[in-house]
Amino acid sequence: MKKGYEKYFGFKPIDIPDRTWPSKQITKAPIWCSVDMRDGNQALVDPMNLEEKLEFFKTILGVGIKEIEVGFPSASETEYEILRTLIDGGYIPDDVTIQVLVQARPHLIKKTFEAIHGAKNVIVHFYNSTSTLQRKVVFKTDMDGVIDIAVKGAQLIYELTEEEKKKNPETNIRFEYSPESFSGTEMDNAVEICRRVMEELHITKENPIILNLPSTVEGSTPNGYADQIEYFCRHLPNRESAIISLHPHNDRGTGVAAAELGLLAGADRIEGTLFGNGERTGNVDIVTLALNMWTQGVDPQLDFHDIKKIKEVYERCTKMSVPPRHPYAGELVFTAFSGSHQDAINKGKMYMEESHSDMWEVPYLPIDPADVGREYEPIIRINSQSGKGGTAFILANNYGIKMPKAMHPEFGAVVQNACEEKGKELTADEVFDLFQKEYRNVNGPYRLVNYKISEEKNEDDALTTVHFTGTLKYKDEAPVQIDGFGNGPVGAFCDAMNKTPLREYEFIDYDEHAIAVGSDSKAISYIQLKTPQGKTIFGIGVSHNIGYACMKGVICAINRDQPDTMRDDTMPGIFDVC
Amino acid sequence: MKKGYEKYFGFKPIDIPDRTWPSKQITKAPIWCSVDMRDGNQALVDPMNLEEKLEFFKTILGVGIKEIEVGFPSASETEYEILRTLIDGGYIPDDVTIQVLVQARPHLIKKTFEAIHGAKNVIVHFYNSTSTLQRKVVFKTDMDGVIDIAVKGAQLIYELTEEEKKKNPETNIRFEYSPESFSGTEMDNAVEICRRVMEELHITKENPIILNLPSTVEGSTPNGYADQIEYFCRHLPNRESAIISLHPHNDRGTGVAAAELGLLAGADRIEGTLFGNGERTGNVDIVTLALNMWTQGVDPQLDFHDIKKIKEVYERCTKMSVPPRHPYAGELVFTAFSGSHQDAINKGKMYMEESHSDMWEVPYLPIDPADVGREYEPIIRINSQSGKGGTAFILANNYGIKMPKAMHPEFGAVVQNACEEKGKELTADEVFDLFQKEYRNVNGPYRLVNYKISEEKNEDDALTTVHFTGTLKYKDEAPVQIDGFGNGPVGAFCDAMNKTPLREYEFIDYDEHAIAVGSDSKAISYIQLKTPQGKTIFGIGVSHNIGYACMKGVICAINRDQPDTMRDDTMPGIFDVC
Repeated sequence: MKKGYEKYFGFKPIDIPDRTWPSKQITKAPIWCSVDMRDGNQALVDPMNLEEKLEFFKTILGVGIKEIEVGFPSASETEYEILRTLIDGGYIPDDVTIQVLVQARPHLIKKTFEAIHGAKNVIVHFYNSTSTLQRKVVFKTDMDGVIDIAVKGAQLIYELTEEEKKKNPETNIRFEYSPESFSGTEMDNAVEICRRVMEELHITKENPIILNLPSTVEGSTPNGYADQIEYFCRHLPNRESAIISLHPHNDRGTGVAAAELGLLAGADRIEGTLFGNGERTGNVDIVTLALNMWTQGVDPQLDFHDIKKIKEVYERCTKMSVPPRHPYAGELVFTAFSGSHQDAINKGKMYMEESHSDMWEVPYLPIDPADVGREYEPIIRINSQSGKGGTAFILANNYGIKMPKAMHPEFGAVVQNACEEKGKELTADEVFDLFQKEYRNVNGPYRLVNYKISEEKNEDDALTTVHFTGTLKYKDEAPVQIDGFGNGPVGAFCDAMNKTPLREYEFIDYDEHAIAVGSDSKAISYIQLKTPQGKTIFGIGVSHNIGYACMKGVICAINRDQPDTMRDDTMPGIFDVC
Repeated sequence: MKKGYEKYFGFKPIDIPDRTWPSKQITKAPIWCSVDMRDGNQALVDPMNLEEKLEFFKTILGVGIKEIEVGFPSASETEYEILRTLIDGGYIPDDVTIQVLVQARPHLIKKTFEAIHGAKNVIVHFYNSTSTLQRKVVFKTDMDGVIDIAVKGAQLIYELTEEEKKKNPETNIRFEYSPESFSGTEMDNAVEICRRVMEELHITKENPIILNLPSTVEGSTPNGYADQIEYFCRHLPNRESAIISLHPHNDRGTGVAAAELGLLAGADRIEGTLFGNGERTGNVDIVTLALNMWTQGVDPQLDFHDIKKIKEVYERCTKMSVPPRHPYAGELVFTAFSGSHQDAINKGKMYMEESHSDMWEVPYLPIDPADVGREYEPIIRINSQSGKGGTAFILANNYGIKMPKAMHPEFGAVVQNACEEKGKELTADEVFDLFQKEYRNVNGPYRLVNYKISEEKNEDDALTTVHFTGTLKYKDEAPVQIDGFGNGPVGAFCDAMNKTPLREYEFIDYDEHAIAVGSDSKAISYIQLKTPQGKTIFGIGVSHNIGYACMKGVICAINRDQPDTMRDDTMPGIFDVC
């Protein structure tokens, strides 16, 4: 094999000097199709379960996407199951079409028709791979062989559709065909296979086919793909009987551009995913595409007014993250760190106010953050809703305080309140001071005055026996002796607490880590309790003794839930010797 | 203000129907300029410190970039300092040019010339903002006013350069001018301001100026930017005396495309960052651009043969992450989850082997992963070097076992060995079994046979006093009594251990978390020790007793460091009752 870059063929551009797309502009929204539940889900380390898929489906509906590829029901039992759940559970609105993918292979096509039974609107999407490379190394056949596969698939699909129509006249079945790896196929071959498929399916202008032209692996600068699309559109007979669909991937980081230039070149429809999820580098990102249109004064006909909510569902269901620099949705994209940027933004906002401008005229912000339910965030994002991530980051990064994730919203709210009170953003030190005040300085009304522990482990490795006795005091009332047993000091302490009225607090979770290096370092514990009213509350404890750090965390959480929480702001700090 | 999308002006395309760029292809590498230490660093929540900047600088040199913008020395003391350190410390190779940024303002220009004193090759890069929007809302001036700022800046720079040449004839100073927010500027105005700047700087073909044309905020489909570049190149007088540089941002997710089409349109040079770091959505990504060329058989003249190393330095210094779907470098981009993709990849590889193909002919992999020091990873990435992240993900996600980050490489190596032995990838359950075998099942040669703890906390909140006594056994030798005091049970245990020969193990760090819910749940501890030979080793302990979990972790780590580590694979599992 040749060395390095010399071993790559590179893209062979097609000859279309009279191309028209570079002089065009995008003036209307395409038909959108979500392939999140198919390409997106397939590419997850941990694919979505049924419940997550249902939530995701609803989110896609909420965005306003009307064509949704829900799976490959003939290839996977779980995808069969989700399809049946959607149909039988009545989850699919009447104006929404579900799309099912199937290879152009007879037994899979048959199973697919079983799977869609009872659905109102269906797109049966079949495909086979047509590229020069795949014909050569995978299928070891010529173009005629590949056309034959597509034609036989089309014939069977037509037949089964006619049967289904007789059985269920109310079912509306449409067809989609993908010459997979289109962008690696000779264009005349791509046109010819699509023409043959259209013939076999008896396609008419009234009942058009969707021809989906994937850049299965992105292999050229995006103008190369656009040229292919324009060439294809020009040469396809009965162009008016086809809806031209794009399915760009992002291997070269230009998937969004390929989709945009492809639309200029004549395409009508986009298949993509939210935030560009999908195999390898992902499918084209529908969110970015739609909001790009929005910033050009074009109605994308999709609803992203609360992008944080959509992002939250996405991240929870897919276990992927939207990166901090992701257009429109990333945590950092409405943040200006540079003083001159901040200055220009402020001047733009002032100009708009003073001149009662009708239009958005703010430098460095390509979109009004409010349009997607967000805020402009100068410097560090510790002054807004989304600030909880920033706050946690600052504590972890600057102070080594690694709050468990479940604690972020609670302390985020504390910070937000302080921001609102102060009227501007907080410094890192101010955030840390807030943390100390809120958690560390709590010292009443309950106090664990003293305790003794005796602990014994015997030969039997399984369990230690721990006996805890201590004195608990409520304000100036007489101290109460408490006493308990357990497998460990915390268990014994909790047992003792459970013999008091505080038993109504339920222990949920804890995290603990060292806050310096070495065996003599202190530990910080984060304790999560459920209060008698059923809400979640956190406490922290700091001590050289990891058990005592936990007990302190429990008392701290309980105290924070009292109406008369006592704090002592002269207490030694978290990092001070004590 | 108008509602929603109607409030945006959108991009005004320029009229250039005879554009030539869409018929061109990229056939050679541009001049590369890294702005990582400037735009990239500025956009970090936690900017790099001096040490990190030096390491980053060396990494950029290692990539082979010869022009490096190192800062804005007149605006920031720390950027002044790094510049002086680079010059005075002799860090800048003779064939490398450092670039310094400065606004076209007299006092800043003067300070900049002080800062570059003694450097061999310098590009003085000055700028002012020229866009319609910024003139209107920020500077409240017309184009003449903006030209005046640039001209005065150019005059002063020329003057100071002539002075510096007299003082230091060996210093090679070149000029760069940016009409900032170029892509929002009327093209004729952009040409005019650059022409005037060239005049004032006495630019000749022999000593060309760099004219840098930023899309400061990306505001059009990438063909719009390319049209601007081609128009600018055609209309600039003395085009041959200028190096045209692009500085694309990525607000619309098309920064890479804009750079590529801009190169087709006539640009000579790219300013960008590694992995697209930079303000908001980032600057254009040099890694993606270069490797895109590579896959087209074009030598990018940059070295990314070990992308993992570059990514590691990047992530450590910037505290940003390269997202899992980032082209070429993301964790998931060489992973094939789909069976048909895996099948095609295998067939492509077989074809190459059997036919002794000179060329890369593998579907679904746009680049040979080995070209960037990586591997193709079917399904889950637990069979390679980079698998430590995947392994940690699986343990955390499937089993709730959240190893501290420092432990990932150690267990990653264990998994890799197992993979190599097995000859293929492991399932999640197999990974968990390995974890149990490696850590949980360790039960010798040292054993803590039994212990007693007595612990007392008095009124004084500060410290508890803990007395630990126990029996330690080495294999079948006679048990040894150990005894220690401390602030906590672990401290007391360590004190006791420190009276034995095992004192040579140094306690470094621990993490601990619950592995189920509730106060009666078990804890898992992760203990990091330094061995007498100075290497790092980990142990874990599982117990209902958080203190005992730690002690077990210490003993486990020590045992794992012994030549005759004993394991009992019939021990109850981490999640089994014990």
